[in-house]
Amino acid sequence: MKDAVRLPHVVIIGGGFGGLQAAKALAHAPVQVTLLDRRNHHVFTPLLYQVATAGLSPGDIASPIRWILRKQANVAVQLAEVQGIDAGRRVVRLTSGPGDAEVPYDHLIVATGATHAYFGHDEWEHVAPGLKTLEDALRIRRRVLLAFERAERETDPAAQRRLLTFVVVGAGPTGVELAGALAEISRHALQSDFRAIAPETARIILIEAGSSVLSAYPDDLRAFARRALEQLGVSVWTGSPVTSIGPGRLQVGAETIDAGTILWAAGIAASPLGASLGAPIDRAGRVIVNPDLSVPGAPNVYVVGDLATVTGPNGRPLPGVIQVALQQAECAAKNILHVLKNETTATFVYDDLGNMATIGRNSAVCDLGRIRLKGFVAWLAWVFLHVYKLIGFRNRLSVMTQWAFSYVSYQRSVRLITNDSAIDSE
Amino acid sequence: MKDAVRLPHVVIIGGGFGGLQAAKALAHAPVQVTLLDRRNHHVFTPLLYQVATAGLSPGDIASPIRWILRKQANVAVQLAEVQGIDAGRRVVRLTSGPGDAEVPYDHLIVATGATHAYFGHDEWEHVAPGLKTLEDALRIRRRVLLAFERAERETDPAAQRRLLTFVVVGAGPTGVELAGALAEISRHALQSDFRAIAPETARIILIEAGSSVLSAYPDDLRAFARRALEQLGVSVWTGSPVTSIGPGRLQVGAETIDAGTILWAAGIAASPLGASLGAPIDRAGRVIVNPDLSVPGAPNVYVVGDLATVTGPNGRPLPGVIQVALQQAECAAKNILHVLKNETTATFVYDDLGNMATIGRNSAVCDLGRIRLKGFVAWLAWVFLHVYKLIGFRNRLSVMTQWAFSYVSYQRSVRLITNDSAIDSE
Repeated sequence: MKDAVRLPHVVIIGGGFGGLQAAKALAHAPVQVTLLDRRNHHVFTPLLYQVATAGLSPGDIASPIRWILRKQANVAVQLAEVQGIDAGRRVVRLTSGPGDAEVPYDHLIVATGATHAYFGHDEWEHVAPGLKTLEDALRIRRRVLLAFERAERETDPAAQRRLLTFVVVGAGPTGVELAGALAEISRHALQSDFRAIAPETARIILIEAGSSVLSAYPDDLRAFARRALEQLGVSVWTGSPVTSIGPGRLQVGAETIDAGTILWAAGIAASPLGASLGAPIDRAGRVIVNPDLSVPGAPNVYVVGDLATVTGPNGRPLPGVIQVALQQAECAAKNILHVLKNETTATFVYDDLGNMATIGRNSAVCDLGRIRLKGFVAWLAWVFLHVYKLIGFRNRLSVMTQWAFSYVSYQRSVRLITNDSAIDSE
Repeated sequence: MKDAVRLPHVVIIGGGFGGLQAAKALAHAPVQVTLLDRRNHHVFTPLLYQVATAGLSPGDIASPIRWILRKQANVAVQLAEVQGIDAGRRVVRLTSGPGDAEVPYDHLIVATGATHAYFGHDEWEHVAPGLKTLEDALRIRRRVLLAFERAERETDPAAQRRLLTFVVVGAGPTGVELAGALAEISRHALQSDFRAIAPETARIILIEAGSSVLSAYPDDLRAFARRALEQLGVSVWTGSPVTSIGPGRLQVGAETIDAGTILWAAGIAASPLGASLGAPIDRAGRVIVNPDLSVPGAPNVYVVGDLATVTGPNGRPLPGVIQVALQQAECAAKNILHVLKNETTATFVYDDLGNMATIGRNSAVCDLGRIRLKGFVAWLAWVFLHVYKLIGFRNRLSVMTQWAFSYVSYQRSVRLITNDSAIDSE
């Protein structure tokens, strides 16, 4: 190939919302795009909790990245794990695999996101898994279902009680959704399946160090969410920092809870790739980017989504939500095109479209700025928006079918414990 | 509980077709039933190959056993792995777990089935996995999808060719279905997804030691199936015993095939539980049962399904198909009731309803005794019967939706590589 016709090579790391949006934004641009991800699929993360609580199948909320981008001729997708970025030589280093172990770039967009933080207690992760990937969701589903199975076989009342106690740490949107869904499983879906235990007596405790659930929402929606959770049978403990976690037990201040299942939905730890750029990072490991999302000291590199930290109009960092990632991806893609045309890059400005969180069947809260919805109307808005946004026609159809079925029957249909050793404790 | 009101305790081991049918047959009988299975779900095995080839989700073809039996008040379901049977003391020994490690029985039905046999080469299993469980199906799906991903990154043409070569060993119904589905994936579903490789150039080879595919079927249907496979692009090698298998390579007589993916669909190895009964077993480990399906020398124990061997009217053992398991389960359940009433037990008589196997999209063969169908009509009959028989309304609906979508779009929608380390070689 002659040098004269060689198009600028844009590499995107990450096939989440930010990475995909960046690729799409470059669809008609005179660039060649390579998107790298260590998984072959994009996950619609707002519905991960539905997979974790046996309401949906993994296939319903995920699509292969190369399938999503199949019609975009200027994109090549590679299943590859990135080890580091050499901003000086302008190459991305892959961990292994056949062919090139390095991918050179002219422009780079890093969109590898963040995971949960255990506040210096990484040993808690094994006991209290977080919910960021499909594998996490399947692991949580297995643990929750196995807890009921073990309780059914258990003859010691104290051990049975422990098995039927579920704790969710962190009352942000994910924690609230998980706790609500756990309450529903135990109150409705499993009702007639067991002989020795009454699943509806399961304790579900939502624990939050801060002073309220859904702290990013306005007061009235927070109060509503708390009441709705309590009506579902969830005990909500706010102002309760967890001080220690061990197998089957956690400590909240002076109080010890015997809980067979502990799930983690707190904290933010950015992908370690950010640190490898050599740019300033914040306490959570997020890259402190320039106003145009480029990285100080790393030419032609942009960071978008949960891995970046940008100060919002209220002086606080923008939240790690999908809307921010999507808008930043658009901005970074445009800025690459500006650079190619020798134009000035644009400053990123966040257009806040609002937030929504669901609290079990029939109830949700939506904060759309001036408009606030709660209860059933909010839940309908949530269902509509999430199904509408699901990538791929089939997924939409499948999810609608499953939800319609769950709604009518109160059932959760994907209650499978799949693992090479289904009974072994983990 | 007083001894006077204690009902006879029937224990069923296995929640496959045989075990479930036995439990259902005892629904209105004056007995207490305990069904033991090491998995929490029943799998509709005729569609496992669809999960392995990314056409359906695990949740579409499986349902929790306790959910299937939730309305049957005299059944308790336990998630438990059975270690052995002590027919002298009339107890089933469990491997571990809380509570009782032994389950006493008055009557026992063993329905633990069979798996594939590697003809004394158990070391082949790691390289060439079989397809009996959901975990197997997910493992195969991962391998197949990863082969295409690796080929896309590979620069050495020979290595790329090897990655794009898929071998299925054994041309019974499972082997034929797998080979047909692999041909479809590569010819249609992946067509526009890759940039460096042309998935439709993948080689799919179906290898059979015997003289024809689908040896249990009449001549004309066998010939039809072979032609249909070849039209899909499958190379069919009959009379070709595999002599050795290693990573990325297998030996068929003098010929060596470099194949990145080798799948196994041959042989029968009965569950090891049969041998623990102390009764005579055949070469495959199947229990040679009495004509009433009871076990010689093990009072009140019955074996049904793939774990039993019964001679059919033609002097050959009955095949390991679902119909045999279902009818044997009915017979064993009835014989238990006969024994309870001090009546003579009945001899098992198999009512052969016929066989069907699919060969990719739009084509199948059905041998219904006097009526034989092939091609599209047979495929419609196959679709109708399989969806109709799928346990659970939701599954039926979901499978129909997915199939309708796949049919119209040629897509396979569940192309997810899920694993804790998606890229690592296994």
